[in-house]
Amino acid sequence: MPASYAYLGPEGTFTEVALRTLPEAATRELVPYVSVQSALDAVRDGEAEAAFVPIENSVEGGITTTLDELVAGRPLMIYREVLLSITFALLVRPGTRLSDIKTVTAHPAAQPQVRNWLKAHLPDAAWESAASNADGARLVQEGRYDAAFAGEFAASRYGLVPLETGIHDAENAQTRFVLVGRPARPAAPTGADKTSVVLWQRDDHPGGLRDLLGEFATRGINLMLLQSRPTGAGIGNYCFCIDAEGHISDRRVADALAGLKRICLQVRYLGSYPRADLKPGDADAPRQDTSDEAFAAAADWVGRCQDGRF
Amino acid sequence: MPASYAYLGPEGTFTEVALRTLPEAATRELVPYVSVQSALDAVRDGEAEAAFVPIENSVEGGITTTLDELVAGRPLMIYREVLLSITFALLVRPGTRLSDIKTVTAHPAAQPQVRNWLKAHLPDAAWESAASNADGARLVQEGRYDAAFAGEFAASRYGLVPLETGIHDAENAQTRFVLVGRPARPAAPTGADKTSVVLWQRDDHPGGLRDLLGEFATRGINLMLLQSRPTGAGIGNYCFCIDAEGHISDRRVADALAGLKRICLQVRYLGSYPRADLKPGDADAPRQDTSDEAFAAAADWVGRCQDGRF
Amino acid sequence: MPASYAYLGPEGTFTEVALRTLPEAATRELVPYVSVQSALDAVRDGEAEAAFVPIENSVEGGITTTLDELVAGRPLMIYREVLLSITFALLVRPGTRLSDIKTVTAHPAAQPQVRNWLKAHLPDAAWESAASNADGARLVQEGRYDAAFAGEFAASRYGLVPLETGIHDAENAQTRFVLVGRPARPAAPTGADKTSVVLWQRDDHPGGLRDLLGEFATRGINLMLLQSRPTGAGIGNYCFCIDAEGHISDRRVADALAGLKRICLQVRYLGSYPRADLKPGDADAPRQDTSDEAFAAAADWVGRCQDGRF
Amino acid sequence: MPASYAYLGPEGTFTEVALRTLPEAATRELVPYVSVQSALDAVRDGEAEAAFVPIENSVEGGITTTLDELVAGRPLMIYREVLLSITFALLVRPGTRLSDIKTVTAHPAAQPQVRNWLKAHLPDAAWESAASNADGARLVQEGRYDAAFAGEFAASRYGLVPLETGIHDAENAQTRFVLVGRPARPAAPTGADKTSVVLWQRDDHPGGLRDLLGEFATRGINLMLLQSRPTGAGIGNYCFCIDAEGHISDRRVADALAGLKRICLQVRYLGSYPRADLKPGDADAPRQDTSDEAFAAAADWVGRCQDGRF
Repeated sequence: MPASYAYLGPEGTFTEVALRTLPEAATRELVPYVSVQSALDAVRDGEAEAAFVPIENSVEGGITTTLDELVAGRPLMIYREVLLSITFALLVRPGTRLSDIKTVTAHPAAQPQVRNWLKAHLPDAAWESAASNADGARLVQEGRYDAAFAGEFAASRYGLVPLETGIHDAENAQTRFVLVGRPARPAAPTGADKTSVVLWQRDDHPGGLRDLLGEFATRGINLMLLQSRPTGAGIGNYCFCIDAEGHISDRRVADALAGLKRICLQVRYLGSYPRADLKPGDADAPRQDTSDEAFAAAADWVGRCQDGRF
Repeated sequence: MPASYAYLGPEGTFTEVALRTLPEAATRELVPYVSVQSALDAVRDGEAEAAFVPIENSVEGGITTTLDELVAGRPLMIYREVLLSITFALLVRPGTRLSDIKTVTAHPAAQPQVRNWLKAHLPDAAWESAASNADGARLVQEGRYDAAFAGEFAASRYGLVPLETGIHDAENAQTRFVLVGRPARPAAPTGADKTSVVLWQRDDHPGGLRDLLGEFATRGINLMLLQSRPTGAGIGNYCFCIDAEGHISDRRVADALAGLKRICLQVRYLGSYPRADLKPGDADAPRQDTSDEAFAAAADWVGRCQDGRF
Repeated sequence: MPASYAYLGPEGTFTEVALRTLPEAATRELVPYVSVQSALDAVRDGEAEAAFVPIENSVEGGITTTLDELVAGRPLMIYREVLLSITFALLVRPGTRLSDIKTVTAHPAAQPQVRNWLKAHLPDAAWESAASNADGARLVQEGRYDAAFAGEFAASRYGLVPLETGIHDAENAQTRFVLVGRPARPAAPTGADKTSVVLWQRDDHPGGLRDLLGEFATRGINLMLLQSRPTGAGIGNYCFCIDAEGHISDRRVADALAGLKRICLQVRYLGSYPRADLKPGDADAPRQDTSDEAFAAAADWVGRCQDGRF
Repeated sequence: MPASYAYLGPEGTFTEVALRTLPEAATRELVPYVSVQSALDAVRDGEAEAAFVPIENSVEGGITTTLDELVAGRPLMIYREVLLSITFALLVRPGTRLSDIKTVTAHPAAQPQVRNWLKAHLPDAAWESAASNADGARLVQEGRYDAAFAGEFAASRYGLVPLETGIHDAENAQTRFVLVGRPARPAAPTGADKTSVVLWQRDDHPGGLRDLLGEFATRGINLMLLQSRPTGAGIGNYCFCIDAEGHISDRRVADALAGLKRICLQVRYLGSYPRADLKPGDADAPRQDTSDEAFAAAADWVGRCQDGRF
């Protein structure tokens, strides 16, 4: 097993910064890949132990490239998640003043986050898209553009300086990243966990999706993400990527998944892992009737009824 | 274990006729009791192996005396059910003509079934209630009344003759009887079974009862009876006697019962037993997603996910 | 319109006492009838303005005779309800001591309420059923039995004295009575009202009843009574008598009834009337999303969307 | 009112082809805009009567740029939808042979559709992204790249020839376009219509989304699209873009929308318009209990109950 983590490159992006917040990253070789697909294929092919990719952000929602890779192809599993607050710095070559800036660049995903700032401070600057924020910084270094929006951490790598920092149109802008590996026994529950699955409906009828969600609702399980993705069977055909509260070793989650497995055409399990937004002690306990104890007591009672000992 | 069956007497009633349709009744001593309560207490106290009592009829609905006995007190279990079509004969002393009849008698439960017939044929006859239909026949034999409504089978026992038979106001009038014993391992499923339970809600809120019924509905389980009974905690406080399709050894039924056990304040299991209204081959098979195979496959899949083998 | 109220007689029963708690009873002639059926038929036939009958008690649950009369036949409507706490007195002829009592009588419905008291204080007394508690008192007056269980108020009418009062096995024993009239515009809402309906399912399928109850649940409407009654179409065929929170002039109740009307085979409206268990100011207000204001705002918004003004 | 339609340009893309399938397009000036946002702002600002933009495709799902524009900002309304099957041609300068091609270009959205074809026929060609498929064709004309994937219709405009046509990895690849205008009275129902809304949940609790979907499900309304989009309030906060069967003038749809309006924090109506995938006669009729007649009859019945005429 190679001790390397693939990640969506290039170096010097928010992805790398997020990855380095994981303690285990310090003991692995971190290898940038040009696309989510190639990073995940590196895991599938055994070239990397795991891959670190963005999966959701507060501006764009679910990141469809990543979701589509998890939905299809050889099964993968989410091991960990990381939340990173996203603010941009305006990086320039040393000596550049705001009034000198005629062209700015960044990855297109940055645009919704800096649009208002641009309108207020550089209304006349021309925007050019870059392949990544790091690549935008490189092009500024090379003199192709005057300024790049990127993480402040990217400045030193490209010999640039931040002219402005903390740029973000939306408050609470965050990106969620996941560390993805091959199927394995999920990490032990921490008390504040999340379980990800993909659901395909057996047939499409009024109430079909409502009934799927009912498997979570009747067991008191909150959902954090519901993202529809095309199945490939033509327009209007969707599967659903769902993040739900809890760990597959929680009885209520296991029970909900079993229910879904029965009523869905297909269910793909994507893993159970610690929540990045909550510390274990801060998660709400399950309701009395959906605790592990309640499930165990109910199963025991049914067994006693079946045996005539009631 | 005494080889006797208690039943709601006296002799010569529909209850005894229904009991004698059970093959096993031929090998037991059949002992009439004066009330449902005393018959069931005979079982509780070990005086009888089982008791045979009416539980539901098509005119009166659930028979509350029986239901209340099953709901409270030491637990009992339903072993078998019998359906009997109810039609009455008008029994008289030999020689009595219709025009001679001034007084008629029967158990009050017979009244809704013979009311129209009486209005048409004996509009001026006075009705007197008897403690049972058999007792009414005895009182006619003694000359106290002129005619009794009872089962035709009761005529010979009391030296009477049927002046008219097949009397029934409602088409399809039937009474359902149950053979009740002490808790034991339920009889093996036949493919057309019924499971009886009593449910007490944990708290009373909008949707509470809807959610209880949802445990059956989401598993494709039809209900045959839903009868509310007072809990004794004051007016407006009810528990629910429910007859549901299927056997506790069916995965969908066991799963529904486990769900109910979690969300109810209390569940009392009253047994799983063959349906009297259907032959095994005639029951609808469970839907694909609620078959035993579907439950087994789902549990297996969850186990594999928990083990990382997916 | 005759200014008389029919009631379930005879005189001197709990029913008459409950009826006299209604202020309007003081201005009507109160006429006892021998049965619930005859009292209600007096209303149907225009002989009485309204009829006062028991409909539910905390020991027996729904009173099936009354419910069945409301379910079938010419439509009637509930105008008012009264709750009466039920405790019994042991009435004897003056001079009778407890040790003199060999026989006791009362209506059979009294038996569950006095059973424990009898076992403790008169274990050897023989029980004989009477046609009503008042009739039992009359039979004691006539010397036929030694003692009668009846309301304390019945003593003077029959020249008896209460040897013991406040007899009740179950705490909080109450009977609910209703004043029933011909269909009319329901009384104005008081803020603490109840609406009664009878529902017949269109077809019987898993989840059918759950869906009916969902029409109340999704609108935050609590149920106070759900009593199944046979439809007459054979065993296992039931309609449902339901008492629900609120008044038909409340938007959420009207909306729920309209939903039920669509999905049920039949709905019979039985009236909206003030709750006897709550003062107007003490009822919970509807949830924000089911208030009249919420319904009005939603209807207004849909209208504006239909008109293109949004 | 200017008689012009804005559309997502440039000229010569699938969007323009789809727009020209609308009969009314023949009588309008068709004006290309550089972005979905600018096309929709042209409508908002009164520069264009309507805008034509892609909203969903069978490979990428909901087109988030368009959805986000409809979700936020000044309200707009969908007037029409168009479905277009998407297949690509490989466009080259006259004389280019397959073996000459070293570089290919197209809009990134084309990539999932031509990936397999490329792997099979041009495994060594380098991919370069273009701002649009039409722009890619222009760059081939200018000699910057050797070949472009685009609609076959784009060839003549740029002096190119199709070397291969009918390229599509996924069968049934379609894009759905919408004609968007300012809020107005929706077009009359055709019998096969669709209604689009955006829903924001009032609070986030287990079952919240299930209950929203229940407003459609209980009225027998099928959903064609459920696409979550970030609300901007931070990661994990989503609103839901929903396409549902039926027209706001259908009683069941109006009733569902009213229900949603009550229970949601906010509902944005996006219009009711003819379905492009069904001819009016081919749509399923509503179930008996959700037909306009059923709603009218139920409302009438409730009114009669309120008036005492039942």
